[in-house]
Amino acid sequence: MQQAAAHEPVSAGRLRQLIAEGRAVVLTNAVHRPPKTCAVGAELRTKVNANIGTSKDYADLARELRKLAAAEGAGADAVMDLSTGGDIDAIRKEIIARATVPVGSVPIYSAGAKITGRGKKIVDMTASDMLDAVRQHMADGVSFVTIHCGVTRGVLRSMEESRRVCGIVSRGGTFLTRWIQHNRQENPLYERYDELIDMAREYDVTFSLGDGFRPGCLADSMDRAQMHELMVLAELRDRAVAAGVQVIIEGPGHVPIDQIEAQVKIEKELCHGAPFYVLGPIVTDVAPGYDHITSAVGGAIAAAAGADFLCYVTPSEHLSLPDEEQVRVGVIAARIAAHAGDIGKKVPGAADWDREFSGLRRRRDWAGQLERCIDPIMARQVREHGRPTDDDVCSMCGEYCVFKLADEADD
Amino acid sequence: MQQAAAHEPVSAGRLRQLIAEGRAVVLTNAVHRPPKTCAVGAELRTKVNANIGTSKDYADLARELRKLAAAEGAGADAVMDLSTGGDIDAIRKEIIARATVPVGSVPIYSAGAKITGRGKKIVDMTASDMLDAVRQHMADGVSFVTIHCGVTRGVLRSMEESRRVCGIVSRGGTFLTRWIQHNRQENPLYERYDELIDMAREYDVTFSLGDGFRPGCLADSMDRAQMHELMVLAELRDRAVAAGVQVIIEGPGHVPIDQIEAQVKIEKELCHGAPFYVLGPIVTDVAPGYDHITSAVGGAIAAAAGADFLCYVTPSEHLSLPDEEQVRVGVIAARIAAHAGDIGKKVPGAADWDREFSGLRRRRDWAGQLERCIDPIMARQVREHGRPTDDDVCSMCGEYCVFKLADEADD
Repeated sequence: MQQAAAHEPVSAGRLRQLIAEGRAVVLTNAVHRPPKTCAVGAELRTKVNANIGTSKDYADLARELRKLAAAEGAGADAVMDLSTGGDIDAIRKEIIARATVPVGSVPIYSAGAKITGRGKKIVDMTASDMLDAVRQHMADGVSFVTIHCGVTRGVLRSMEESRRVCGIVSRGGTFLTRWIQHNRQENPLYERYDELIDMAREYDVTFSLGDGFRPGCLADSMDRAQMHELMVLAELRDRAVAAGVQVIIEGPGHVPIDQIEAQVKIEKELCHGAPFYVLGPIVTDVAPGYDHITSAVGGAIAAAAGADFLCYVTPSEHLSLPDEEQVRVGVIAARIAAHAGDIGKKVPGAADWDREFSGLRRRRDWAGQLERCIDPIMARQVREHGRPTDDDVCSMCGEYCVFKLADEADD
Repeated sequence: MQQAAAHEPVSAGRLRQLIAEGRAVVLTNAVHRPPKTCAVGAELRTKVNANIGTSKDYADLARELRKLAAAEGAGADAVMDLSTGGDIDAIRKEIIARATVPVGSVPIYSAGAKITGRGKKIVDMTASDMLDAVRQHMADGVSFVTIHCGVTRGVLRSMEESRRVCGIVSRGGTFLTRWIQHNRQENPLYERYDELIDMAREYDVTFSLGDGFRPGCLADSMDRAQMHELMVLAELRDRAVAAGVQVIIEGPGHVPIDQIEAQVKIEKELCHGAPFYVLGPIVTDVAPGYDHITSAVGGAIAAAAGADFLCYVTPSEHLSLPDEEQVRVGVIAARIAAHAGDIGKKVPGAADWDREFSGLRRRRDWAGQLERCIDPIMARQVREHGRPTDDDVCSMCGEYCVFKLADEADD
């Protein structure tokens, strides 16, 4: 608790209180405490998660470890291993062993991979397969698990009545929907939620309640299916918090810019202040290749409105699995959003970095700027690419540098 | 007027009315009508301007023409030639001749360059030097000119009383401040504003009233100097509109995310609905190398709140003069912001692109997505970089593609 509060604008005591109220969480695991603690929630700095992990097409552990290093190097506060290709149990264990930040995961992916690996179908999973996967991930040392407990038969009816352009875009939500439809049974992650609570308590792992019906395009944002699922997650949040389990609520996704604040406010009200973990949100559907930018726009607005945890989106989203450079750029873009949001929601001390940095800029302290900026690697590269003749200024303004002119006027 | 309204959600008649009210402008020039018309203002799509132009360090015309092509190719609605290096009269003429979109300029730069080229100082300019430069640019065919008429002795006193971290960051504002302080005279662009109005009427050129005291860091945003100058610009706007001259108001700059909407509302109220042309705004000072992202965040919020014209910011801002690739990325980032803002402010038809594009995504129409997205060049590159084994999906989800799974479920 001390360590978690050390880099936050609150005391350890206040953080403990926020956690007791279910308004903040500390990502950890009883059998594997991550070297760097990460607290998420009210009154804290907005945190950034980076999704890494293999796919069928790129199933190389070494590549994922490079992505892990890139994410941590760029300042990610947590990573999620979403591997779906190769020996995913071994990959997860290795990522947990190497990571300095908390690792999250989506156990249903490995449950699904295991069943298809045995030549069966996703719908052939048993309820125990799903729960066993959650326990396995916790025993392996993940600090938070995404569980799609809100994909219930009732919410599915709301979904079927909605006229979505993109339907269901969550992979976990898709797996469970198909499972429910095929087996004509309730979602085991909902029905056997108390067992999941017991596991989480045993391992001190945080639930990240997944939004299986998050909108996959602007047109689908805030429809009845999304809101119905959020209502279910809100109830599940209460049950977990009452049992002493930490909970984060996951959110969208693709959202028109004028709905983002409302999305955050609704989550905060319905879920009694539970930390809100948004994926993006991206503010237009038409910019594949630039979704680190579309999500930085949405993420900054969400954070300023009260979202606590931003899942980064890389330039490769909607197009391909990211490599380490795309991971790096994705983390920086999300950190920009988180920081801009923190200034907006007045996190104590957030604006100090900008004020201090602006002083360096005013004094033309280039070494200081290149050291203290959010990404020294990129800033150096760009300055070198357009090197000035005179090291005292930059190649845009040269002798007309306003700060140089001001200094000359003062002389 | 017909041509300007053709790509807008308003009729030519409605556009004419908006112009009469000073709430919209059409960027043109009586002696050089740009091949592509650009209307800016209320009820219209948010437009994007790209600043190009030489500096002392990079004074190559060929390079600037490549940047012009990059800006137009990426979809800029206008460009400004801000050249300060080389034969800037010749460069401006060539850019105007080659551009298909309206060209804007800042005449005080060439007035300044001319005087320093003769071995004198900026403060040695005469009032006539300044006004002659404006006339020259108009005669050359620019469609809009930035004139810093609001840098008055009165506003300068507000500036001197403010305790800014970064002082004055507008080059034109710096030139005029030093001129006023040295010559102990009023700003000629303010004193002889009626002459400027006559010129603008003669050439049918739009005034872009520059904010010489725009904040250069978050800490300086919305201070008394900035607001005082805006009050002066508001009065000057009324005088121009009464004389039949089109006016745009320029805005910041560096603005905390929670002040952006207020900045737009104040401009719209004080300036009676005049089109608002923002430079960014960028939402954090600490991200040189990523200011196309920090400005996309601010630009999207500004546009959604009512800003009409976004001046792009490239990744090289604060570090170096941009090259053509940085220009391209800057334009796309600003177009993302403009489009997200248009969806937010409900410009009729804006969301149609996203809805149609999401249909392509849902149907896994990859050819369609790569053709209809905002930057087909980048999207193709990213998809090729992480090529899938199966062309039907992408390399992130592979066989777990939610859209493919949904199609299989429907079979």
